[in-house]
Amino acid sequence: MRGEPLLPHLGIPDRATMANDDEEARVTPWEVSGVVDYDELIERFGTSRLEGPIKEKLVDLAGEDHWMLRRGIFYSHRDLDVILDRQAKGKPWALYTGRGPSGHTHIGHILPWVFNRWLQERFDVEMYFQITDDEKFLFDNGLTLDDTYNYALENALDYIALGFPAGKTKVLIDTQYIKTMYPLALRTAKRITYSTARATFGFTNDYNIGQIWYTSMQSVPAFIPSHLHGEEVPTLIPAAIDQDAHFRLTRDVAPRMGFPKPCLAHCKLLPSLLGGDKMSASDPRSTIYTTDGPKVVRKKLMNAFTGGQVSVEEQRRLGANPDVCPVFRYEEYLFMPDDAKLAELELQCRGGEILCGEHKLDLLERINAWLERHQAAREEARERLDDYILRD
Amino acid sequence: MRGEPLLPHLGIPDRATMANDDEEARVTPWEVSGVVDYDELIERFGTSRLEGPIKEKLVDLAGEDHWMLRRGIFYSHRDLDVILDRQAKGKPWALYTGRGPSGHTHIGHILPWVFNRWLQERFDVEMYFQITDDEKFLFDNGLTLDDTYNYALENALDYIALGFPAGKTKVLIDTQYIKTMYPLALRTAKRITYSTARATFGFTNDYNIGQIWYTSMQSVPAFIPSHLHGEEVPTLIPAAIDQDAHFRLTRDVAPRMGFPKPCLAHCKLLPSLLGGDKMSASDPRSTIYTTDGPKVVRKKLMNAFTGGQVSVEEQRRLGANPDVCPVFRYEEYLFMPDDAKLAELELQCRGGEILCGEHKLDLLERINAWLERHQAAREEARERLDDYILRD
Repeated sequence: MRGEPLLPHLGIPDRATMANDDEEARVTPWEVSGVVDYDELIERFGTSRLEGPIKEKLVDLAGEDHWMLRRGIFYSHRDLDVILDRQAKGKPWALYTGRGPSGHTHIGHILPWVFNRWLQERFDVEMYFQITDDEKFLFDNGLTLDDTYNYALENALDYIALGFPAGKTKVLIDTQYIKTMYPLALRTAKRITYSTARATFGFTNDYNIGQIWYTSMQSVPAFIPSHLHGEEVPTLIPAAIDQDAHFRLTRDVAPRMGFPKPCLAHCKLLPSLLGGDKMSASDPRSTIYTTDGPKVVRKKLMNAFTGGQVSVEEQRRLGANPDVCPVFRYEEYLFMPDDAKLAELELQCRGGEILCGEHKLDLLERINAWLERHQAAREEARERLDDYILRD
Repeated sequence: MRGEPLLPHLGIPDRATMANDDEEARVTPWEVSGVVDYDELIERFGTSRLEGPIKEKLVDLAGEDHWMLRRGIFYSHRDLDVILDRQAKGKPWALYTGRGPSGHTHIGHILPWVFNRWLQERFDVEMYFQITDDEKFLFDNGLTLDDTYNYALENALDYIALGFPAGKTKVLIDTQYIKTMYPLALRTAKRITYSTARATFGFTNDYNIGQIWYTSMQSVPAFIPSHLHGEEVPTLIPAAIDQDAHFRLTRDVAPRMGFPKPCLAHCKLLPSLLGGDKMSASDPRSTIYTTDGPKVVRKKLMNAFTGGQVSVEEQRRLGANPDVCPVFRYEEYLFMPDDAKLAELELQCRGGEILCGEHKLDLLERINAWLERHQAAREEARERLDDYILRD
């Protein structure tokens, strides 16, 4: 069976099949809860599916395929065709993605960055990486601005460690680049009513006035390339789909500000290692941080929820279910780019040929090897931080 | 009758007697409409009357009296005793006032600045002058950020022209000093819910999200002296009473941020030259700008509403009513500091001895003489702007 296209199935992880209630999942930039039905989000948010001719055009222009496209991990978009048309015509565009520095970087954050790095490498465009230390201060009562700024620097190391080149890659830390950003944020904010912001984000009266303001800051990097270059440079924002709400607003206001609308590519979220319905960013056991040591990683991975059976005997007899298994998702999303290998693993898993413990130990070795290299690269990046961070 | 104390009467301009409906005047930082009853505002806002022992203590410490105190133009306060106690003990404090740069400076803006200059001169303290180019951009659809920034510089000239010394006087233009201000504004915003802001300012759903955010920026200069000096330096904010709402919020959040509460001294608003119920900042005929030439001033003043009678004959017989006369207010508030002269003018006015036209011509001469000196001083200040403006 090796090599047979199991991947169309893998393309859409059926977490929806786990749903045991009719409640709609809550997916906002600050909360993802309930069982996320990614197909339903395309309907709810009004985005387009990243498949067929547009996917082929992207692969064609890039000169190669990427597993996150093949497997439908980047699965949705807005106006990607605008960017691809510009690329085909040799007109400038830029990449924009970001990070909310509420703590250390984890594997889930790395996911879209890997795709961003691939895009930048393929298309040789500028990359603007926003770190929203203001946002995380405003939205987390336990964090001071010193905390979020320090995490901003730590998170930037992870980003740089992925190989983004200085010069072409600009890191915007909101509080540090505010003199350039504030006027653009004001122009954005002037065009967004409280009514619209409330409908978009679900604000209630107990939200603070900084939280209500904040979305205007997340719009700004979509305008920065045009602002700095003095010509139309639209952005492509490859990011997790939970960030879409901000950019629906950005896209609304952009033309009225004389800027091109940003275009988007949306990815799915890496599930929690603990399984179950909820993504829990606040539980450190639910994910692996880039700063975790090998023993911590071992403990987290060995304790992770899987799609396995209750006993060795049953697993050998019935096989396991990779569809509901976060450990299998780690392979599919990040650690097993080779389709043939992934297909084989799936067969072994479903057939009960491999036990979850065996698989975990194998993955553990690869994760720890990756982490060792990454941790060395992020320490090495510490001295080069100033080559990336934009300051006014 | 010359020299007899008519001034207790003058202390509270009875615009309230003009009220012809029961509607409460609307007094917010962005709108003053209806007939303002300044006594009622003390009740409504919960401030204290600036009179009796505290006024005496201020005069005593200053070493001299000021007509704006004697005449009750500065008539209300919050915690002025805290500042006076610090002054008596030789502990540091600072002045803070400001300007929203929606256009050129007019005589009404000059009013509290004159009192600020007197306070700074008497107490030799630092003065922080905020110019809110962000605010006026957010609140006025007709203005761009370039407009409000340009007006900010023009307004600063008027301020400097009043004699504020460089070194001791710092001009903060929000968009220019944002790198220092933004973190403090974020800390403020985090502590103000939408619910509180709405109740304070009367926001409705069609306000933009920048307007909702803005009050946190107006809080910041209250914290800047403590922030810059690394010790407790409370501010005294002498400003028109319509600005009080912002500082009620500032005073709420200050202790939770580890800063002293700002203290306030409130003045009344210079009425419109057009008379009637409404203050209209948008009608250029309603006030005299510091950039107006002598002919423009003449036209505005000669067309001004007065408390006079319909004919010379009636005025000679019945006398005029200075209580409802904006031209008389100009004398009382700014152009006739000498109490004896003002009392004499009032007698002549009430007695029909002077006609409104005669009085206007006399005042015109003094206003134009003042403007000539002021305009020369503000041009001279243009080259010294950089000595005042704080930049990050």
